Amino acid sequence: MANKQDNLSAILYGVEDLRLEQRPIPEINDNEVLLEMDCVGICGSDVHYLVHGRIGDFVVEKPMIVGHESSGVVAKVGKNVTNLKVGDRVAIEPGVGCRLCEFCKTGKYNLCEKMIFCATPPVNGNLSRYYKHAADFCHKLPPNVSMEEGALLEPLSVGVHACLRAGVGPGSEVLILGAGPIGLVTLLTAKAMGATKILITDMIQGRLDVAKELGATHTLLVSRDLDEKTIVKKIHEVMETVPSKTIECCGGETTSRLAILATKSGGCVVIVGMGQAEVKIPLCNALVREVDIRGVFRYVNAYPIALSLIASGAVDAKKLVTHHFDITETTKAFETSRYGHGGAIKVMIHCQPRDKNNSKPFNS
Amino acid sequence: MANKQDNLSAILYGVEDLRLEQRPIPEINDNEVLLEMDCVGICGSDVHYLVHGRIGDFVVEKPMIVGHESSGVVAKVGKNVTNLKVGDRVAIEPGVGCRLCEFCKTGKYNLCEKMIFCATPPVNGNLSRYYKHAADFCHKLPPNVSMEEGALLEPLSVGVHACLRAGVGPGSEVLILGAGPIGLVTLLTAKAMGATKILITDMIQGRLDVAKELGATHTLLVSRDLDEKTIVKKIHEVMETVPSKTIECCGGETTSRLAILATKSGGCVVIVGMGQAEVKIPLCNALVREVDIRGVFRYVNAYPIALSLIASGAVDAKKLVTHHFDITETTKAFETSRYGHGGAIKVMIHCQPRDKNNSKPFNS
Amino acid sequence: MANKQDNLSAILYGVEDLRLEQRPIPEINDNEVLLEMDCVGICGSDVHYLVHGRIGDFVVEKPMIVGHESSGVVAKVGKNVTNLKVGDRVAIEPGVGCRLCEFCKTGKYNLCEKMIFCATPPVNGNLSRYYKHAADFCHKLPPNVSMEEGALLEPLSVGVHACLRAGVGPGSEVLILGAGPIGLVTLLTAKAMGATKILITDMIQGRLDVAKELGATHTLLVSRDLDEKTIVKKIHEVMETVPSKTIECCGGETTSRLAILATKSGGCVVIVGMGQAEVKIPLCNALVREVDIRGVFRYVNAYPIALSLIASGAVDAKKLVTHHFDITETTKAFETSRYGHGGAIKVMIHCQPRDKNNSKPFNS
Amino acid sequence: MANKQDNLSAILYGVEDLRLEQRPIPEINDNEVLLEMDCVGICGSDVHYLVHGRIGDFVVEKPMIVGHESSGVVAKVGKNVTNLKVGDRVAIEPGVGCRLCEFCKTGKYNLCEKMIFCATPPVNGNLSRYYKHAADFCHKLPPNVSMEEGALLEPLSVGVHACLRAGVGPGSEVLILGAGPIGLVTLLTAKAMGATKILITDMIQGRLDVAKELGATHTLLVSRDLDEKTIVKKIHEVMETVPSKTIECCGGETTSRLAILATKSGGCVVIVGMGQAEVKIPLCNALVREVDIRGVFRYVNAYPIALSLIASGAVDAKKLVTHHFDITETTKAFETSRYGHGGAIKVMIHCQPRDKNNSKPFNS
Repeated sequence: MANKQDNLSAILYGVEDLRLEQRPIPEINDNEVLLEMDCVGICGSDVHYLVHGRIGDFVVEKPMIVGHESSGVVAKVGKNVTNLKVGDRVAIEPGVGCRLCEFCKTGKYNLCEKMIFCATPPVNGNLSRYYKHAADFCHKLPPNVSMEEGALLEPLSVGVHACLRAGVGPGSEVLILGAGPIGLVTLLTAKAMGATKILITDMIQGRLDVAKELGATHTLLVSRDLDEKTIVKKIHEVMETVPSKTIECCGGETTSRLAILATKSGGCVVIVGMGQAEVKIPLCNALVREVDIRGVFRYVNAYPIALSLIASGAVDAKKLVTHHFDITETTKAFETSRYGHGGAIKVMIHCQPRDKNNSKPFNS
Repeated sequence: MANKQDNLSAILYGVEDLRLEQRPIPEINDNEVLLEMDCVGICGSDVHYLVHGRIGDFVVEKPMIVGHESSGVVAKVGKNVTNLKVGDRVAIEPGVGCRLCEFCKTGKYNLCEKMIFCATPPVNGNLSRYYKHAADFCHKLPPNVSMEEGALLEPLSVGVHACLRAGVGPGSEVLILGAGPIGLVTLLTAKAMGATKILITDMIQGRLDVAKELGATHTLLVSRDLDEKTIVKKIHEVMETVPSKTIECCGGETTSRLAILATKSGGCVVIVGMGQAEVKIPLCNALVREVDIRGVFRYVNAYPIALSLIASGAVDAKKLVTHHFDITETTKAFETSRYGHGGAIKVMIHCQPRDKNNSKPFNS
Repeated sequence: MANKQDNLSAILYGVEDLRLEQRPIPEINDNEVLLEMDCVGICGSDVHYLVHGRIGDFVVEKPMIVGHESSGVVAKVGKNVTNLKVGDRVAIEPGVGCRLCEFCKTGKYNLCEKMIFCATPPVNGNLSRYYKHAADFCHKLPPNVSMEEGALLEPLSVGVHACLRAGVGPGSEVLILGAGPIGLVTLLTAKAMGATKILITDMIQGRLDVAKELGATHTLLVSRDLDEKTIVKKIHEVMETVPSKTIECCGGETTSRLAILATKSGGCVVIVGMGQAEVKIPLCNALVREVDIRGVFRYVNAYPIALSLIASGAVDAKKLVTHHFDITETTKAFETSRYGHGGAIKVMIHCQPRDKNNSKPFNS
Repeated sequence: MANKQDNLSAILYGVEDLRLEQRPIPEINDNEVLLEMDCVGICGSDVHYLVHGRIGDFVVEKPMIVGHESSGVVAKVGKNVTNLKVGDRVAIEPGVGCRLCEFCKTGKYNLCEKMIFCATPPVNGNLSRYYKHAADFCHKLPPNVSMEEGALLEPLSVGVHACLRAGVGPGSEVLILGAGPIGLVTLLTAKAMGATKILITDMIQGRLDVAKELGATHTLLVSRDLDEKTIVKKIHEVMETVPSKTIECCGGETTSRLAILATKSGGCVVIVGMGQAEVKIPLCNALVREVDIRGVFRYVNAYPIALSLIASGAVDAKKLVTHHFDITETTKAFETSRYGHGGAIKVMIHCQPRDKNNSKPFNS
């Protein structure tokens, strides 16, 4: 076990001000576990807080530990905890609901208004040596799942939730707009759920190449100078069909519009990407064709699904991890993620020596 | 039976050009019935075609018989017809799908691209003495249902479809925007499905008074000079809750915006009213709160439901009929509907002497 | 407020051994409230424990306070409680899940294996002067809902859950087997959800008369000497249709068989009544016609719905209460319920003077 | 094109009386196509009719052409047909509904009471040189799908329908009882839909070996001398979990019982196999745990899904075909299927020279 005095943590003090500092190791309550953190992936939101100090109404007003795509090893268990024991390797589902409200009781805890979510201000994240968490939101990893994959369950859960919201099923013909990390996990999930045609679009060919490698049946390079009608027509031509499910993973007005126009009557548009508050969209086109529009807020009850997809081999997400850094290199890690250096997709930060808790080296 | 030579029909020749003329009595095929028409209600779309000559891409390019909210009596049956016999009183479901496409086979025939729909150009409607129709889209009325109510099944089916799309159920708290005919049938249906709080809004107090009489638990008079935040706040205050279902029955950008902002997280906005092609909406607000946005295109498999609601007394729609005219007074009937003369809600045109086919007078 | 020393409680010591004794007033934790109990209805299960000392694997092995259909007034609140304050009148949802397991997190807490449920051994019920409960499972009653109705929410929630499981909706044609208290609450709920034909069966005409009064559109008196084919035929004849939903509220092999045989292809049989462990049923008949068979275990998230149905007037359950007793008359109350004296449907026990907490007398 | 005079057909005259005879080539109507038949797989029901002359109420009372798992090439098109042209290679969905009834209109045409289904008495099947069929129930095969796979879409559609009825999705843990052809197609489909643990049982090790090869994560050899509690315990031990979905593909009382007992609370049992009319089952066990019981009658709207699964490679069903015979060897083909000679799973009969209509040889 690591040095019990060392709780180095990555703390965001404000715009462009991310510092590594020691923090006290947290005390757990009866329903919590203390975790020796292992892997923490960098999410677009972490970078966004670093650059802008806020996302919408969530503002970094006091120093906050960043990081929420993570895995760790149980170092201590509260006295009521029955699902975990010291030494268990776990993926950490970062949001915990109040357990009391209508949303929590009806199985939609992602909508709980009192949710505590790692690294959403003012709640601390877990890019640190130690971290405590509600035991029931720690998902035990089987030996064949690496700590890196444990951390990847977080974005993968977004993909799972998006595909479930879209009703992807066997034979689904799916359009995914955007081949960034979220587009890619959505692709992996859709494929695992039986989607048989998946066209993914992006403005960067390199991302489409990765998507192709991960199982996209079609890709389409788009550019700002193409008008939307042309793009819609191309999508239909390339797919040789009209997709019944479109999952928007960019967060722009342009792509929200495309999503509506490109989707089959009676189908469904799921918008994962969050963009500007107000958008101008061809709503009537969606309405008269009964194309439903659905949002995605994080995920709910998706971690167990994401884990089983990884553990069974139905989804192989390892290729998403393009870069590795030690927690002491956090600044460099964020830069790599922020600017996409070296074709960065997912940048992983290690709070422990690499592969310390893996049954075999991650890259092998 | 009526004069078999007389097939007086209300024919729209173009903008502001509606004429009464004789047409040949149609010949039926083996799966059709010939109907002696009884009641035909005037729909907003009928008036719209009269005034504008088009709705969206549907343009009146050659003379078209108007009318599609209708009931009649079977005068003749095709040789394959087994569900009806001469003399049966029926409500006429005006749209018939191709029966062959994916939509028809999966129970979504309203989305069939080859649908034949009465009085949607270039298909003739049935404001005439005689009309032929697919027998399986004629719904036999029990004796306690009047011909007027048979005609009302058409708008009522829109309400049924809207409430089903919204997932209205027991205990639902529903916001309905707009107290025109569609808002009112939606109100009646929502109530019959177990909605326990229903607030309906309108800009005209008289309509709200009718809504109250028909079972709205709350009403709210709105006006253009109120900003949307204020209206949303008022809605929540008056309802003493945040509605989980909102059904927009106006078709404007303003009300689409209101629908999103006023609805509870995890809830559903159903938009029945069709307005301008492009709207600016606070989409992100809906997405992050997982408020689904769904359109309604006519209805599907809703006639039998609407009929049973009327026949059982679960819904009393008779009060919607405010005016009666003979087919020979069609021009006046349209004016009454168009300008809302005399507080007109639903204007009924009679192709037969009133109550000829009713077991008791409609108004009693 | 009542005498803070008095916590008279009805305690079941074993078969036919129900005693009234004082118990200490319970201490609450931070998330609980202390309730001054008002009304407690007698459920069939309470009587069953009295007579048999067990239901299935649940055995009364040590003295247990009975009662779980109840309402009370908040006397004290835990320091974390925000939804209630002293003096609030509440209905008490008797089962509280663990909040941690898969079932609790996915909105199916009724299936939680660690559920604490009032008066299911070894957990105490609440037929007593004072009782403590999780605050979030206490549902605040509006002024127009009586304490008796608050207690009735328990059986009504069973009806709500059953109808939701059956997918009752507008125009549903429903067969209910059994006109006991559960059959009757199911009838009330089905009607409120838009069912337009409801046939209810029983072997006692008096119960059918009550059912008729409560809104059944058809009733059918059945007897043991009728063979099942004859009964099925009669049901279809009387309803003039084949019901698509059947809700079995008796718990016998005979009625489970009837439920399957009488239901329309593609429909649904919901079985609320629990009977013998093994039954012989015409399963193949259900399978080839895709008639689904679904059980009901208590209810989940149904209290808020049941409450809104009562509060809005959509359901009037008051007529179910046929008898009133003071807690000191508990023995007599149980006898009345057990033997159905005086046409007893629901027997209500009062832990407080009647109407003390009602805005107007219950019977008026 | 084949000899237009030759319409050799396999005709069942009664029990154990299957003859090859010439029949007239059928005339098509405007909505039909004439098909030059290519492949016809032998189904268990074909064998059952041969051996018993009946299945339930369906009795072979006059000579009937057998066969319904089939593919062919369009030889002639009716004048209304727009979806196909001469030369198109198609899979033939063997059941055509009336298109008029409630079931057909609501997307459940498999429950249509007037369905015409190949080789279900008295309707002829299509093990013949020529056959006519409704054009919209012929599904065009892309070049990469062989005629054999076209024929396999029939049993695969059963698997698709079963998995959809069961709600199999990503991360599903599925128990399949029986590794016959239906068990195997269900396995393939479940896997393609994201099931991550699939245990399949059988009494024959050879079948389990095939299942393992096709993707079962676990297999369990069962035998009649094991009591059901032991088998259930073994299933849970081997899976290291309790399956939430169980799909019974045997049709026996024993396996129906097992299905219920082995399934997780809140889960679902789908029974595909049809067995004896009456069975004794632990119904109460299912009810109190809300384990739903659902039947499967053929399939509905499943052919397009099955086809896309094959065409995309998501499902590889080719290994199911263990034997090939020419139509002139029909008797031998039936014997092979009936007695499972040579480990027969699916026996394919060719009405054309093998691979005549395939882009590459089937076995390569």
